[in-house]
Amino acid sequence: MTDRIAAEWIAVDWGTSSLRAWAMRGRDMLAEASSERGMGSLSPGDYESALLDLIGDWLGGGVTPVVVCGMAGARQGWREAGYAAVPCPPVGQGAVRPDVSDPRLSVAILPGLSQTQPADVMRGEETQIAGFLSQTPGFDGVICLPGTHTKWVHVSAGEVISFRTFMTGEIFALLSNQSVLRHSVGDGWDEAAFADAVRDGMARPEALAARLFSLRAESLLAGLSAASARARLSGLLIGAELTAARPYWLGQRVAVVGAGSLSRLYASALAPEGVVAETADATRVTLAGLAQAYETLRETT
Amino acid sequence: MTDRIAAEWIAVDWGTSSLRAWAMRGRDMLAEASSERGMGSLSPGDYESALLDLIGDWLGGGVTPVVVCGMAGARQGWREAGYAAVPCPPVGQGAVRPDVSDPRLSVAILPGLSQTQPADVMRGEETQIAGFLSQTPGFDGVICLPGTHTKWVHVSAGEVISFRTFMTGEIFALLSNQSVLRHSVGDGWDEAAFADAVRDGMARPEALAARLFSLRAESLLAGLSAASARARLSGLLIGAELTAARPYWLGQRVAVVGAGSLSRLYASALAPEGVVAETADATRVTLAGLAQAYETLRETT
Repeated sequence: MTDRIAAEWIAVDWGTSSLRAWAMRGRDMLAEASSERGMGSLSPGDYESALLDLIGDWLGGGVTPVVVCGMAGARQGWREAGYAAVPCPPVGQGAVRPDVSDPRLSVAILPGLSQTQPADVMRGEETQIAGFLSQTPGFDGVICLPGTHTKWVHVSAGEVISFRTFMTGEIFALLSNQSVLRHSVGDGWDEAAFADAVRDGMARPEALAARLFSLRAESLLAGLSAASARARLSGLLIGAELTAARPYWLGQRVAVVGAGSLSRLYASALAPEGVVAETADATRVTLAGLAQAYETLRETT
Repeated sequence: MTDRIAAEWIAVDWGTSSLRAWAMRGRDMLAEASSERGMGSLSPGDYESALLDLIGDWLGGGVTPVVVCGMAGARQGWREAGYAAVPCPPVGQGAVRPDVSDPRLSVAILPGLSQTQPADVMRGEETQIAGFLSQTPGFDGVICLPGTHTKWVHVSAGEVISFRTFMTGEIFALLSNQSVLRHSVGDGWDEAAFADAVRDGMARPEALAARLFSLRAESLLAGLSAASARARLSGLLIGAELTAARPYWLGQRVAVVGAGSLSRLYASALAPEGVVAETADATRVTLAGLAQAYETLRETT
């Protein structure tokens, strides 16, 4: 028999392809659970039961607050939570409360952030930014959040000033899995090839579509290894991104927040440019951001 | 009852996803036929019967020469036809003859072209280049062949001097059909948005991955139409390509050879740069190139 977990509140990160939840007491994590019932596989009427399946055992007799970030707040999600317009603090205002049938639940979904010019949006990363800032008091600089849609975010005095999204991760996945390059790109890694390709991508970003086909041609003509092709594909894409994002990182304090392996790639790509990037784990800052949102909601309601 | 077609020889363009054949007498086309039995759906043992299903009615009592260009000569094709290394004439040497069971067939598969530095390959386009040159005597300049993998080809004195392949078409297809942009990109076209995006893509090619996500953000925040998003996606990608291909087209005589709609896009993107591109139809030049290869093979065997 296991001890029963009595959550004070529940933190939820509801992404496109996954659902993760944590039973919390204050800022302490008591238990975690996850499922693959992300936004992409759910209709609005499915969310409450998907959540209860995962966290039902953590609920007590009273009402338990549930704080949700991510795609559950998208237009195609549970209930649209809109966007707060930058410049603004990353979290704190505009949470929406979807209707729920179970009286033990009180759910708040956090909004994303939007920017008018150039047009941009984020949803979920704002919570990571809030968590990072809560763990790094006084941080003033740039946060890079690598992923499917990598974000570069300028933060000052606790507010998000501006940001820019790059589709680098999604383009990498499409090219390596579904383009003609799938025949040339395989498992493994080649650190030197990555570093060369970053430099090359930064120097001639416009040549990307041609450099990419060269990977195919070199594998046909010169036996380019699948590992080197993978590292070069990644390096060329990240190099082009770094050139475009230069106004963000040049001469700034930079933190890279994301999954360990991807964060290390970005940090190593920035190092030759003289940028010593701090790093932070995405899950840890997500939890810290949800905790901060929970505290703010408790104070204001 | 239809007249029986007696082909002197048969021209075949065997692509990844389709097979097209023409019954020929000299340079005159007597009949055409096509099927979807491209390289992607065939094993080496399937090619002869796929061909006979299409052209069987055109064969007489004797041996009919069949000249094949395209992916049937790839490593995964009917029989590998290798590559001729540039600089060299686009066709004329190195055809391979796959084993056939039917005594009425004499099949020759044309090789592609390869380039060592930067590594590059083509297969099929060399035949279009030969056909274009046979129809445009004395042409000295650059041929652009837009498609899934767009080629820019420098031609002088009847030889291919150098070339460069851009994955622009494949990237457009992946992004518009399979990325997050599929929610924003739809049917229709916006000529002004295309022209603006070409200019933008040429000016800041490094910002491509960010400009792409802006299409999604503008459709969420500002109601960007699906037609404008499609035209901008195309323009951004072609603009970046034109910047990288500038050494090819700047100050050169330029011909665009391809399907009508795509050729017109490239020609209209080049016009503001002062390039008045000639255009030629891809099917017509393919046939002319296969005819030239047939004549060369007849002389040398």
